[in-house]
Amino acid sequence: MATAAGVAGETRALFFDVFGTVVDWRSSVAEAAEAVASEIDVALDGAAFASRWRLFYQTAMAPIRDGERAYVSLDALHRENLDAILPEFGLDALEEEARKRLNLAWHRLKGWPDSAEGIRRLKKHYITAALSNGNTALMVDVARYAELDWDAILGADPAKQFKPHPSVYLTAASWLDLEPQQCMIVAAHNHDLKAATGLGFGTAFIRRPSEYGLEQQSDLHPEAEYDFVCESLTDLAEQLVGNS
Amino acid sequence: MATAAGVAGETRALFFDVFGTVVDWRSSVAEAAEAVASEIDVALDGAAFASRWRLFYQTAMAPIRDGERAYVSLDALHRENLDAILPEFGLDALEEEARKRLNLAWHRLKGWPDSAEGIRRLKKHYITAALSNGNTALMVDVARYAELDWDAILGADPAKQFKPHPSVYLTAASWLDLEPQQCMIVAAHNHDLKAATGLGFGTAFIRRPSEYGLEQQSDLHPEAEYDFVCESLTDLAEQLVGNS
Repeated sequence: MATAAGVAGETRALFFDVFGTVVDWRSSVAEAAEAVASEIDVALDGAAFASRWRLFYQTAMAPIRDGERAYVSLDALHRENLDAILPEFGLDALEEEARKRLNLAWHRLKGWPDSAEGIRRLKKHYITAALSNGNTALMVDVARYAELDWDAILGADPAKQFKPHPSVYLTAASWLDLEPQQCMIVAAHNHDLKAATGLGFGTAFIRRPSEYGLEQQSDLHPEAEYDFVCESLTDLAEQLVGNS
Repeated sequence: MATAAGVAGETRALFFDVFGTVVDWRSSVAEAAEAVASEIDVALDGAAFASRWRLFYQTAMAPIRDGERAYVSLDALHRENLDAILPEFGLDALEEEARKRLNLAWHRLKGWPDSAEGIRRLKKHYITAALSNGNTALMVDVARYAELDWDAILGADPAKQFKPHPSVYLTAASWLDLEPQQCMIVAAHNHDLKAATGLGFGTAFIRRPSEYGLEQQSDLHPEAEYDFVCESLTDLAEQLVGNS
């Protein structure tokens, strides 16, 4: 296996998973959902709502990954899933305008405290790109909101497919004219990193133990031999390039 | 016709042509070509070489626009055109490594003096995106070199097509989930702006009277009624958002 220093030396681009790895989707969406619910006098458990909404995410992408449905944006899937879960939370009465507005909660996600600084430092030495299942419109808004200084937004739209489908990783590398071993996937999720490892990409696991709140059970630890294991994006910067 | 103030108010994203509008490709490529030629003791007129190389650009894209050839990146077209013109300049002897290196001159283009600041100011108020025929790898390198602070790099790769083919403009708008009238094309070339106007995009003409050197004959003046006519990107910022 390549040494971490060897991997760092060969790396030209860092591809970041965004939801959970870079931004705290759960508290941001929870807050927005509680605000919208209060407009129709529903007292909502925003965190439970956000987790439930997110849970439908993998299910919704599966038919697209399996080739049974044509690619649609994550914004579109979010909206379908929103309509599906509203009745469970007593929110059937939400009107179209409020549903549209709530769906845009995914465009205004707070970065983890280390994210903006970590990316800024890493960008001095590497191409930094978002590699998310979020569509470009969503990712542009999140980047502006959370001050994420990307060189490029790659991911679902270029491949018209969702991670962990191999084409998402491979299309991103090819659009930058790089080989997989010149690119490192930075993610808080084992399934993302395992898919990337199998394709020859470098890997950095970022611990985000509260992504799903205090009851989080998954992705607390790396489940494979990744090149780097980090506590934050600033920690990744320190491990890769020191304090420069 | 909409007033300029009305167009500015509706605009959410600015799409920038890059070669000539934002960066001075001619002097940058001329300098790189002279340096490479000197390695094999050829005294090259770099400006003439750059102009000749660029001249082949429209010709090379035509079969792709016409559907007679599958999309390939501008890097690939630049390389084909480079190989085609080297004999004219006594540079047949350039080896493969030097040709590859010279082709990358298009990745290191100087911004016009107003470009980085103009984009930085405009980004506070609008989504700023590159909308170039250059491929993503090329555009990322140019943005890093010339310090262009894009929210997104759109253009040829997303559409797998070249401007002024309508799909390049329309794909960019659709990836940002915007209508054409919410997007403004910023360009120094009439053919680019005329294509965009026909699709419903806003338009800003930037005068770049020395893009082709002192003998420049074309694109010295706007040839249609554009929404804005500007002397620079900082002038565009002043016209759109004042000094904020």
